[in-house]
Amino acid sequence: PRYTLQGIVENEVNSISAARGLYLQGVRPGDILQIPATNSLASLPWAYSKACNEYLGVLPVTTGSGVVTATRRQLEIAFDIGVNCWMSFPEYLARLAQAAKDEFGRDVRELKTKMITTFLGPDTEGTLRAHLEALWGCPVYDNYGVNEVGHGALECSHRKGLHFMEDLSYFEILDTDSGGAVAHGKVGNLVATVLYRKIFPIIRYNLRDLGRMISTDTCDCGSSFRRMDHFLGRSDNMVRMRGVNVYPMGCLPAVRSDPRTTGEWVCEAYDAVVDGRAREELTVHVEVRRDAGPLEGLQARLETRLKNDLGLSVGVKLVEEGKLETVANLGEGKAKRLIERRQAYLKNK
Amino acid sequence: PRYTLQGIVENEVNSISAARGLYLQGVRPGDILQIPATNSLASLPWAYSKACNEYLGVLPVTTGSGVVTATRRQLEIAFDIGVNCWMSFPEYLARLAQAAKDEFGRDVRELKTKMITTFLGPDTEGTLRAHLEALWGCPVYDNYGVNEVGHGALECSHRKGLHFMEDLSYFEILDTDSGGAVAHGKVGNLVATVLYRKIFPIIRYNLRDLGRMISTDTCDCGSSFRRMDHFLGRSDNMVRMRGVNVYPMGCLPAVRSDPRTTGEWVCEAYDAVVDGRAREELTVHVEVRRDAGPLEGLQARLETRLKNDLGLSVGVKLVEEGKLETVANLGEGKAKRLIERRQAYLKNK
Repeated sequence: PRYTLQGIVENEVNSISAARGLYLQGVRPGDILQIPATNSLASLPWAYSKACNEYLGVLPVTTGSGVVTATRRQLEIAFDIGVNCWMSFPEYLARLAQAAKDEFGRDVRELKTKMITTFLGPDTEGTLRAHLEALWGCPVYDNYGVNEVGHGALECSHRKGLHFMEDLSYFEILDTDSGGAVAHGKVGNLVATVLYRKIFPIIRYNLRDLGRMISTDTCDCGSSFRRMDHFLGRSDNMVRMRGVNVYPMGCLPAVRSDPRTTGEWVCEAYDAVVDGRAREELTVHVEVRRDAGPLEGLQARLETRLKNDLGLSVGVKLVEEGKLETVANLGEGKAKRLIERRQAYLKNK
Repeated sequence: PRYTLQGIVENEVNSISAARGLYLQGVRPGDILQIPATNSLASLPWAYSKACNEYLGVLPVTTGSGVVTATRRQLEIAFDIGVNCWMSFPEYLARLAQAAKDEFGRDVRELKTKMITTFLGPDTEGTLRAHLEALWGCPVYDNYGVNEVGHGALECSHRKGLHFMEDLSYFEILDTDSGGAVAHGKVGNLVATVLYRKIFPIIRYNLRDLGRMISTDTCDCGSSFRRMDHFLGRSDNMVRMRGVNVYPMGCLPAVRSDPRTTGEWVCEAYDAVVDGRAREELTVHVEVRRDAGPLEGLQARLETRLKNDLGLSVGVKLVEEGKLETVANLGEGKAKRLIERRQAYLKNK
């Protein structure tokens, strides 16, 4: 993957904006924030650690991701010292909650967590947020960030969209094909110009992340910074399938709409032969809870809903809990949501 | 392993002392320092990164260890952006040099590295240093540090012992058995009192690291901070073998004294039966270079030298290059130098 280097100004502003987000989301001096995320060239966990140390009077617990500090150990440390705030990714937060039960027979709600700040992705109906809030028993806040840009947008405590950090970066939302401005409320590529960054300059940089403007009004929190919807996925991770543009992340609302799923899925694109003719197919592997009970009707329900959401007929294959990792790469960090097996696309790699 | 948490003062002083070391060892504004070491609860790489950003005008390349960023990728980044200074461990620096040849057919000396700062361990005869300097074509400086203490001691450019950072910590060298002061020049446990640390306080903390005072005179660099020898190993990793105290790290000078070895070794303690009687044995597995040529006499030579250095007869077993990892845990970070197989010691674990 790419690497991003940054100078002292970029580093400092990153930590100030992380501190701003944490403060707006309720973190206060004396809190203890655990940060299970990989500290390498990615700036995210560095910014949060520095924010805690230098701007918030908060103790950062810099465990790194599960690759660096095992999940079991992450939990031991948290219970041991009374961590009460978390910055991590949704998949890993869910895994931590499960591991607490499996490994220690404890509930993470014993931690009496004050807040979690995370990156919910296209959780437009709030099911992922509700799931995490139920697991952890605390408010969960969404953010949007990119290594080359820093903290792009964040939720204030009113949670009515993600405020662009407009004093730090100027965001445009442009049509994925034409590059022109999209109408208010329409989905397009996020394009960023960072006002403070010199190493290296970011000017009208097309992030190929999909966003949508929700409001340009002043928020109840008093800020007039424009607000966008949740991050809606990647435009370059798009699958062109029988003439339709499909974004793997677009499956999230459907998958999370049924409590019998674990909320995890992965899309598999492949070549098939139907009636003697080659045809591209998409199967969505959806993980199902061990304690889901009867599964009847689930597959058909998800297929109907996905056809509606994606505008394309796709197949759904139900996968036993914990087995999705054999097809996908879930776990720490960002989940992989697309497995490309079509010859025409593999050749170009 | 233990975790160490620190507040803003500890964090700040750690970065100042890292900056001090780097500056004394020749790092200047505009340099680029790569830091292949795990950024987690251990404070080391954090201190160096912050030193670069906030005190030195140096660009830190925070790749993390090989677990986080693959060795191949570490090298690509270094060659790509012209890294000219390194902070890492000896084993990993040697691996990077080898990987550059194996993976890219390049020599790390092409990087025209200005300096390397590292942790040489008990390299009392300078063979490890000479090996790394030959591989990299640049000066190599030693340091001594501990997570709970910070930067304990470092070499200035005169390299006549490691200056204790006496304005930050007070060090004593105490007898490993009696706890009393040892005579000047004798080996004992390093015991530290940290003058600035409150989270948590470190007062006469027995590190169980072995040290030896070299000089209390003013150094040619002008500093009167007392100087110790290289870090000499762990007293709690000591093997009591037939009444003799053996420190696995004590094998380093012998192993590195012959250019036919790769400089890597691991000690294996086990129970044997000799003449019908149980007896504890120690075998030192020593890795031999692929291009070593004739190995005759090497085993006997190492056994003689080790008997002399350790005060104990031990067996030497020569191991093909690259095969030691099947017994030891070499590679990134700190190497494991002792495999304990004696029943009496395993039972107590």
